[in-house]
Amino acid sequence: MISVEQHLDRILTTVSVIRPFELGVLDAQGCVLAEDVTARGSLPGFTNSAMDGYAVHASDVAGAAPESPVVLPVVGDIAAGNTAALSLVPGQTMRIMTGAPMPRGADAVVPVEATDGGLVRVEVRKASVVGQHVREVGEDVESGAVILRAGTLLGPGQIALLAAAGVARVRVAPRPRVVVLSTGDELVEVGRTPAFGQIVDSNSVMLTAAVTAVGATPYRVGGVRDDARQLRETLEGQLVRADAIITTGGVSMGAFDTVKEVLSRVGTMQFDKVAMRPGMPQGFGTLGEEKVPVFTLPGNPVSALVSFHVFVAPALRAMAGRPEPSFPPGYVPAVAAEPMTSVPGKMEFLRVTLDDDQARLAGGQGSHMLGALAAADALAVIPEDVTQVRPGDPIECLPLLGREGQ
Amino acid sequence: MISVEQHLDRILTTVSVIRPFELGVLDAQGCVLAEDVTARGSLPGFTNSAMDGYAVHASDVAGAAPESPVVLPVVGDIAAGNTAALSLVPGQTMRIMTGAPMPRGADAVVPVEATDGGLVRVEVRKASVVGQHVREVGEDVESGAVILRAGTLLGPGQIALLAAAGVARVRVAPRPRVVVLSTGDELVEVGRTPAFGQIVDSNSVMLTAAVTAVGATPYRVGGVRDDARQLRETLEGQLVRADAIITTGGVSMGAFDTVKEVLSRVGTMQFDKVAMRPGMPQGFGTLGEEKVPVFTLPGNPVSALVSFHVFVAPALRAMAGRPEPSFPPGYVPAVAAEPMTSVPGKMEFLRVTLDDDQARLAGGQGSHMLGALAAADALAVIPEDVTQVRPGDPIECLPLLGREGQ
Repeated sequence: MISVEQHLDRILTTVSVIRPFELGVLDAQGCVLAEDVTARGSLPGFTNSAMDGYAVHASDVAGAAPESPVVLPVVGDIAAGNTAALSLVPGQTMRIMTGAPMPRGADAVVPVEATDGGLVRVEVRKASVVGQHVREVGEDVESGAVILRAGTLLGPGQIALLAAAGVARVRVAPRPRVVVLSTGDELVEVGRTPAFGQIVDSNSVMLTAAVTAVGATPYRVGGVRDDARQLRETLEGQLVRADAIITTGGVSMGAFDTVKEVLSRVGTMQFDKVAMRPGMPQGFGTLGEEKVPVFTLPGNPVSALVSFHVFVAPALRAMAGRPEPSFPPGYVPAVAAEPMTSVPGKMEFLRVTLDDDQARLAGGQGSHMLGALAAADALAVIPEDVTQVRPGDPIECLPLLGREGQ
Repeated sequence: MISVEQHLDRILTTVSVIRPFELGVLDAQGCVLAEDVTARGSLPGFTNSAMDGYAVHASDVAGAAPESPVVLPVVGDIAAGNTAALSLVPGQTMRIMTGAPMPRGADAVVPVEATDGGLVRVEVRKASVVGQHVREVGEDVESGAVILRAGTLLGPGQIALLAAAGVARVRVAPRPRVVVLSTGDELVEVGRTPAFGQIVDSNSVMLTAAVTAVGATPYRVGGVRDDARQLRETLEGQLVRADAIITTGGVSMGAFDTVKEVLSRVGTMQFDKVAMRPGMPQGFGTLGEEKVPVFTLPGNPVSALVSFHVFVAPALRAMAGRPEPSFPPGYVPAVAAEPMTSVPGKMEFLRVTLDDDQARLAGGQGSHMLGALAAADALAVIPEDVTQVRPGDPIECLPLLGREGQ
């Protein structure tokens, strides 16, 4: 029996960031930069007005006030998008819009609110100083400067900066492509009615959703029969498009545990009992020339989802270049609102609801109990050496993926 | 001038949940159920074994112990997926795998670990009681019972429960389809080099990414020229596929503010100054027979992204059926790590980095400064009546979308 930390350590020291790929900036949303990015142009790209108003020589309106307005002739209009290089001589003004290029010579903008808004001649009622309401070329970003570092996660603001600075494509760690397959003669496809002895293949849809929720790209193969040859051929066929493979079922003590039978002694696959409940039977290793990581999760649905959160999600984030503390991965503090019990010697993952930080058991805790799982917001993580949790005790919780904002 | 709360209130009392739509369970990930869902079958669907082991009459092995094992003949093998209805008479046993149907008459399972694993006859070394390691039909979910309530957000666990309970399709509030367009003669498409006076249309890519990050479906129209007729035709053409429309630019005090010109006096559109910085000029209303909500955001990129977080994101979540407190929407507590200043009478949204709960200014705070925006994790929200924040003061922060896990 190995500990949860040992199994996770083995996984995280095996997987590595996926080979970088060049993507358009919008397609790279949610990905992590593989290299520093420099600006191809300055921001702003030209000195421009920060307000709708009048471009002036500040010295012309230095004495302007409501009781002593300065009147200037309006000799032009400059709209945003005006690409002509204009000049303003002292003693004159041009109407200028937000974002429009400042005319040569002008050094300040008087907001329209500080004038009478005149079109031929304008009354300026407020003094101005050099640089006021003017955005200087390059004051935000200088051309050639590093704007984003390798390792940056690309969200809306980062994508906007890249686009604005002339960077249309970036090299990123792509989203891991994850093949999901479940095994077992008892499985029927979603939408079909199971006969006596059969069940719907809910594991592959659950894990597909979990892969999506963690920001990776799932390929759902669905149910594979307990047939060694079929499983072997399916795995070989999927290796070419997979950055990782997840299987469920067939790894326990049964006589027909095909996954264990087929994958023992292949690649670096290793099957272990991990000191956790649920989720004890775990397998992990790499397959094929590309050393594709393969996670063989137990077949009980609760065990499979707990295993995904504890082992697979941190690995997929690491493969996508998103660093996180190796253990515990993303835990949040909470308080037990009721007594909880745990077996000694195993890390227990209890399904709980969270009301603010108050954790309550979500119902039946059997590893086959999907009803309670679906009512839960998080997994309460009870360490190996704790068997009793009292109301008010602090506990760590691992939020369930895809339940944010619920 | 209206307050941020007033503008948000007007928006949230105008938008409503999108008409429900039937989707396959996997496609419904991230959506909210529009109605209660009942199980089409029981879970488990048949009484089955919770372990790999031997199905027995518990009374046969009531006295079993390591020093006094009970030996039983093994009269069959039951694999998961076995659809035959078998019976077990007292005094005999069948090997049974996890998830396999219990034979009629058997009332307990002895785990393989408590036996010698025999195939013809087995030595049972541990006593068993009625029901041990047996999952009763319907003990998780009873057929016909409500398994998920209207309003439930569908994540991996909920999708698994639906599939397992025979529900392949569900009625949900679909993801809002959001048309994003930016306006201005100065805009050039991403990937093209702007001439003097021009800028890259980074706003439409930023808001497209933001729409994705909030779980809605974006349609990026991109840049529209400052031409009233072209803008009117573009908006009319997009109304048919939009649950909401976002525009940026053209809503300020300028002489060429086409959005304001075209949309004033149309539908229920209303243009206001909102007491916030950045983001003061805001427009909102509904257009067309379907009363499509239209958000006209300011054109400065920081103003646009702040407006999205404060007004559009809560509205899109409400349209998707995800309730949240109307104000503040999703704020988290933090502590100012350095002095911050704010204008009186306006709610200020400062770009900050968060290191645990320590907030620091992310750099230049101009509303055109994408560099600082891209370095930020959150917006520090400084109320209207606060002008000075001292180090150590508690502040509220609004996390920036798409930066989770950074």
